[in-house]
Amino acid sequence: MSAVVVRGQADFKAMDAADPLAPVVKQFAVGEPGVLYFDANSIGAMPLAAQDALVRLGDEWRRLRRRGWSDSDWLDAPQRLGRKLAPVIGAEPGSVLVCDSTSINLHKMLLAALSLRPDRRTVLVEDGAFPTDNYVAENAVANVRRVAGPEGIARALNEDVAVLFLTHTDYRTAYRHDLAALTRLAHERGALTLWDLSHSAGAVETALAAGNADFAVGCGYKYLCGGPGSPAWLYVAPRHQDKVRPAIAGWMGHADPMAFDAAYRPAPGVQRHLAGTPPVSGNLLMEAALDLWTDIDPARAFAKHSALGDRLIELVESIGGSGLALASPRESARRGGFVAFRHADAKQHAAALERAGVIASYRKPDILRFGLSPLYHRFEDIWELGQRLGRVQ
Amino acid sequence: MSAVVVRGQADFKAMDAADPLAPVVKQFAVGEPGVLYFDANSIGAMPLAAQDALVRLGDEWRRLRRRGWSDSDWLDAPQRLGRKLAPVIGAEPGSVLVCDSTSINLHKMLLAALSLRPDRRTVLVEDGAFPTDNYVAENAVANVRRVAGPEGIARALNEDVAVLFLTHTDYRTAYRHDLAALTRLAHERGALTLWDLSHSAGAVETALAAGNADFAVGCGYKYLCGGPGSPAWLYVAPRHQDKVRPAIAGWMGHADPMAFDAAYRPAPGVQRHLAGTPPVSGNLLMEAALDLWTDIDPARAFAKHSALGDRLIELVESIGGSGLALASPRESARRGGFVAFRHADAKQHAAALERAGVIASYRKPDILRFGLSPLYHRFEDIWELGQRLGRVQ
Repeated sequence: MSAVVVRGQADFKAMDAADPLAPVVKQFAVGEPGVLYFDANSIGAMPLAAQDALVRLGDEWRRLRRRGWSDSDWLDAPQRLGRKLAPVIGAEPGSVLVCDSTSINLHKMLLAALSLRPDRRTVLVEDGAFPTDNYVAENAVANVRRVAGPEGIARALNEDVAVLFLTHTDYRTAYRHDLAALTRLAHERGALTLWDLSHSAGAVETALAAGNADFAVGCGYKYLCGGPGSPAWLYVAPRHQDKVRPAIAGWMGHADPMAFDAAYRPAPGVQRHLAGTPPVSGNLLMEAALDLWTDIDPARAFAKHSALGDRLIELVESIGGSGLALASPRESARRGGFVAFRHADAKQHAAALERAGVIASYRKPDILRFGLSPLYHRFEDIWELGQRLGRVQ
Repeated sequence: MSAVVVRGQADFKAMDAADPLAPVVKQFAVGEPGVLYFDANSIGAMPLAAQDALVRLGDEWRRLRRRGWSDSDWLDAPQRLGRKLAPVIGAEPGSVLVCDSTSINLHKMLLAALSLRPDRRTVLVEDGAFPTDNYVAENAVANVRRVAGPEGIARALNEDVAVLFLTHTDYRTAYRHDLAALTRLAHERGALTLWDLSHSAGAVETALAAGNADFAVGCGYKYLCGGPGSPAWLYVAPRHQDKVRPAIAGWMGHADPMAFDAAYRPAPGVQRHLAGTPPVSGNLLMEAALDLWTDIDPARAFAKHSALGDRLIELVESIGGSGLALASPRESARRGGFVAFRHADAKQHAAALERAGVIASYRKPDILRFGLSPLYHRFEDIWELGQRLGRVQ
């Protein structure tokens, strides 16, 4: 264990004063008075602009009706929001769509990836992946093999593996895979990669283009702050885009949706993976959140996120008798969007914290998670969290 | 052609006075002043309660965050909204879910239906079906056969047909199939039925249970008034529910989603066809619209809808030189949600009507559609439409 650094409240105030992202906090709605929300890993806070988006939706629906598809910007939202999201996840322009749910997109991307390796039959997944990811795989593909950890992955990557399908950040420990290294290894063995970035996107660097990733998917409602059940997103590397036939051929993925052609012709590029009519309310909220990134350098946000996590770990370890033992990697480059601790009575402890105005989340059997947002958390929130963790024991 | 009955404005006012659904009109937001919206076949009007739903969403997101999944009613919205929709489409309780998009649900239901007929390979679709429906089928299944009209369907229903997949109401002419008769014929030949009810649900009787339908899907944003791009819905007949494995296995379709089991166990009943996290904003708006039906007898709504269409046809046929020729069935029992007319310059005519404050819609090559809502259209709106159709020639 590294030496524990004990800092005081003034140090945390000073960190906020020096934080270039500090003004962004004011662009979020305030929650319940006195409550500290550390559930960014579940639902990010509401941007104030989301309120305006809701007003705009009401106005356009009432007034424009079907003309919203031609006279407003509803129709191309999946592509436009994809363009806004791309820099946040390190993707090339034109490689991202905002659409459907994470589960649906995982299904679509897994089948798309498999279609590029017709001579191979196996999909590798991780034993500890988010359960949905494995359900999707095992339901869609006959040969799914479960492995554990980077070494297990390396051993299992044989010449029958078509797709290495991984959760980038573990949903219990926040362990974050080395996307570039595992992608390189998969490519060396002739396999493609599909990454679920739900617990990473908007919090930590995912660098899809630089890491040479093939396919990726993520949700919009955690660190990306798109609102509860917001549309998810998908990514296809430019080199694959015109080679894959979509798993579900819907009219929005047609080359010319409004031509009402009898025959299906896939749209060029990533757009062919669209299926149905875009969900306007969800997209308006998601766009309000993505627009927050317009003037933010993602690298700065990720550096702040890493510092928030480091400070939280230091504070917790400075509290005597907190009962919390770090479950996440100590090295921030190996952590995803939250910091997890083990606690002998984690479930009861989460409830006690909630009564003390700390919203964290519990996962079986002994995990407490604290989701950290680089956009709306202040360092002083971490200090105050430390104080409450010290009191609730 | 039947005799043309010419009625005056006073007659239309009298019809509104006698309409038991007249008070429901006041539960909808008013659009642009002076504009007549006949685009119910595209986007239904906004219920006033949708505004309250948007306020509620902002409040719950801001205040509850992840606790919205436990302390509010976000999580079971797909099932709850399904229960509210069931009587409107004539479905059994527990047989409907509100989720995903129409295209995604068609894909899921088609594969579910096919899994029940493993010894058969062919899916029958209609040549003039909504293009998406055929894209979905031809992308998902090797043997898709296109046929035309009820006679073509009857001839093609041989012992290799697994699924008869039909658009209930034609998206150009509004011709409405006889769901019960074609389902009976399909069953006699050993096939199952999948119905796309997008242009029927909320406007006309669909009677899924009485008609013995197997699977059905529809959108939420047309006559159901769920808002632009609202969640769609799906139906599985109770007799099939526990026999089909879902096409996409997501965590919300698991028997115990919050157990985070490593292995997938499908939920009992229709719920197994859920995949990802429910879209909260879309569901709140959809619920505001479905709640309008609480005190409405669907049979009354369908009778009003049929009368609105009959009156529109009479009025148009009483206008000299309107250039409009009925494209829809004259018999209302064979018409779906809108009334279509042919016009030699349909596209230009639709634009001219729009300038005169009539929102209708054009479809290639010569079709003008007027979508009618039993909930928010008044008979006097039909009268005023007739006046404007007479002036714009």
